[in-house]
Amino acid sequence: MEIELINTGSELLLGRVLNTHQQWLGETLSDAGYILTRQETVPDTAEAICEAVKVALGRADLVITTGGLGPTSDDITRERIAGMLAKPLHHDEAIAEHITSFFARRARPMPESVLVQAQVPEGAVVFSNEHGTAPGLAMELSGTGDGGSPPWLVMLPGPPRELRPMVEAQVLPFIQRELPLAAAFHCRTLRSMGIGESMVEDQLLTRLRPLMDQGLDLGFCARTGQVDIRLCGHGDGVPGLIDEAEALIRGEFGKYIYGTGGESIAQVVVEQLIENGETIAVAESCTGGFLGHHITGIPGASAVFLGGVLSYSNELKQKLLGVRGETLEQHGAVSKAVAMEMAEGARAATGADHALSVTGIAGPGGGSTEKPVGTVWLGLASAGERPLAVKKHHPYNRETFKQVTVNQSLELLRRRIQRER
Amino acid sequence: MEIELINTGSELLLGRVLNTHQQWLGETLSDAGYILTRQETVPDTAEAICEAVKVALGRADLVITTGGLGPTSDDITRERIAGMLAKPLHHDEAIAEHITSFFARRARPMPESVLVQAQVPEGAVVFSNEHGTAPGLAMELSGTGDGGSPPWLVMLPGPPRELRPMVEAQVLPFIQRELPLAAAFHCRTLRSMGIGESMVEDQLLTRLRPLMDQGLDLGFCARTGQVDIRLCGHGDGVPGLIDEAEALIRGEFGKYIYGTGGESIAQVVVEQLIENGETIAVAESCTGGFLGHHITGIPGASAVFLGGVLSYSNELKQKLLGVRGETLEQHGAVSKAVAMEMAEGARAATGADHALSVTGIAGPGGGSTEKPVGTVWLGLASAGERPLAVKKHHPYNRETFKQVTVNQSLELLRRRIQRER
Repeated sequence: MEIELINTGSELLLGRVLNTHQQWLGETLSDAGYILTRQETVPDTAEAICEAVKVALGRADLVITTGGLGPTSDDITRERIAGMLAKPLHHDEAIAEHITSFFARRARPMPESVLVQAQVPEGAVVFSNEHGTAPGLAMELSGTGDGGSPPWLVMLPGPPRELRPMVEAQVLPFIQRELPLAAAFHCRTLRSMGIGESMVEDQLLTRLRPLMDQGLDLGFCARTGQVDIRLCGHGDGVPGLIDEAEALIRGEFGKYIYGTGGESIAQVVVEQLIENGETIAVAESCTGGFLGHHITGIPGASAVFLGGVLSYSNELKQKLLGVRGETLEQHGAVSKAVAMEMAEGARAATGADHALSVTGIAGPGGGSTEKPVGTVWLGLASAGERPLAVKKHHPYNRETFKQVTVNQSLELLRRRIQRER
Repeated sequence: MEIELINTGSELLLGRVLNTHQQWLGETLSDAGYILTRQETVPDTAEAICEAVKVALGRADLVITTGGLGPTSDDITRERIAGMLAKPLHHDEAIAEHITSFFARRARPMPESVLVQAQVPEGAVVFSNEHGTAPGLAMELSGTGDGGSPPWLVMLPGPPRELRPMVEAQVLPFIQRELPLAAAFHCRTLRSMGIGESMVEDQLLTRLRPLMDQGLDLGFCARTGQVDIRLCGHGDGVPGLIDEAEALIRGEFGKYIYGTGGESIAQVVVEQLIENGETIAVAESCTGGFLGHHITGIPGASAVFLGGVLSYSNELKQKLLGVRGETLEQHGAVSKAVAMEMAEGARAATGADHALSVTGIAGPGGGSTEKPVGTVWLGLASAGERPLAVKKHHPYNRETFKQVTVNQSLELLRRRIQRER
């Protein structure tokens, strides 16, 4: 099955905004067994949009467009595509009422121009927009030439907070109904930290090979400091193959696997803390709050996250966390001893069951021969346990350094709290 | 001039990684007057890559590819494109030496296979890779049909930390030399916070119109809680028009403009603090460290950022920041009084010249009729000034809420420290 995504918007080509649709739609579709075969971005001109849609409809089974369905003068997708496909536009009263009540609920005056969004091409399926005004649209087309079944065109609104819930609740079920897969698709992603793709291949490929010969598709995706192991395939026998493969992988690398599916490491940690009825605090130096940000990014984190200290300066390490002056003097701020005292200090200051600490050199300045840029100590203190600290080296740019460091810090805690179960 | 970008990589279409090349290259090129006219993502198959490159070379003046230049089996861009264009590959000893020393410097064993990256198509220009092993390549092509000047094909490595410095130092100057603009391009972006696009249009369009009639291109880009005002144009008269337009806009909205060019609000604030010789601390509740993360994301921040407190719980607000129990009881944690006491407490605890505080309801839970989800108070305390606090309402998702809140908090400080100059 050929599926093409066309993102419209000159601001994407000017680089003013990041195109997150490609990643989100690509992942959402592929997790359901539908693989994007091509993606394209075109400017907001009638000519570019129509040509791209026309060419794509000539070769694909499903063409998805994003953007250009709003009420302003550069929102031309609906009107121009309908014109190109010779589908007259009709006023849809239900959509008009939705738009009117959308403005009324927000007590905002409604410009007459927004009702253009209630125009629907003849025969189109309408996807209601729960978070905005422009509905999504789907049209089955005929006569595009190659004699196969006619392609579908799906047009989605541009804002992610409108598009995403629409796709999840309405568009994906619609695609599964209208374009069913030849064989049921099954997929499981194991998320790991601390192992490399080649380690898995080196140690397991001979044992995984027979499963792959039976139809299991094994894929890897390296993210910053992480590797996702993707086990997929089509057909009724695949769930059994996935189970076997997962058992093999967990047998060898179980402790490195922090979750399955779309979970982040922060989510796994916060949910485990909630389940354990335990609390957490942080003491951050070089990450400057990024660890706390990740924990508090998970809805419900307030049940387990008490807070913490950003002890960027040595003075604050002493004053707020009780790190001893002589420890700083003897070992320096980036050291095992200071990481442990920071974690213990954060527990003492907050009364949390666990505390994570981070102290390192993010760069670009501040490094030395003994402690080069990228050196970082991660500490962990827990009630009734001896504190521990591990050393890592991440000679990356500041942003990547922080991201990898935060993930590894959370992983340190995960191994402790999941072990406790 | 037609410029097309082709991103290769099945992992992009599977949504396993975010395509940041489009945004970064789009912005970098357009700031130099080169506008991407189309972007496409294709899978790692020889057929898809060759077809996309061939079609693009048939209509564009410059085609840029990313990815597929590495040493592994799915890195096929160089070999297959060279084959398609009938350019034999030659071993380049200088590149081979660079690769060998790259491994030697890192004391890592070098697999023989990596030397495939030293293969260069006949006549190609080589861009050295300072941060990796695969060089970039440029080829001028002939005979692609339309009679105009022959197009250029530029092939870049996939990893952003290799691609970006290569583009800035080598590729952009190369493009400017080989594909000069008909008239010099000038561009200035004013970054604003607190005003809407329509406010600028409503109040200034009649006065800006004469400048636009003379060739000034006025564009807006709304980011979360911010609007970038872009003043651009081609020709020698444009710098004068940009100056006039900037003066008009600053005359009306000067205090909302925090910077020009690629500066972030955090960068402006940190640089101003460095210039003023002042220090900053934070007291964060609902942002959970994201404010500190933004400040410490700026290289050199350690000169001005002392640290702070993540006072997620009320207990920590009292214990570490000295917020009074009766203030919390009388006004609640999300209140003007608590925001001010948090900021004052952070100054007292750290000795910083300024302290920013944030207390709010990020949601999805925790809202009430009186204080709905999205309510947030931003506080600021400074040496020798009375503390202040302002109320905002951001009924967005958790991530957007945090981003807008952090930006506005930094903006609060910017207005104070820039006013002091």
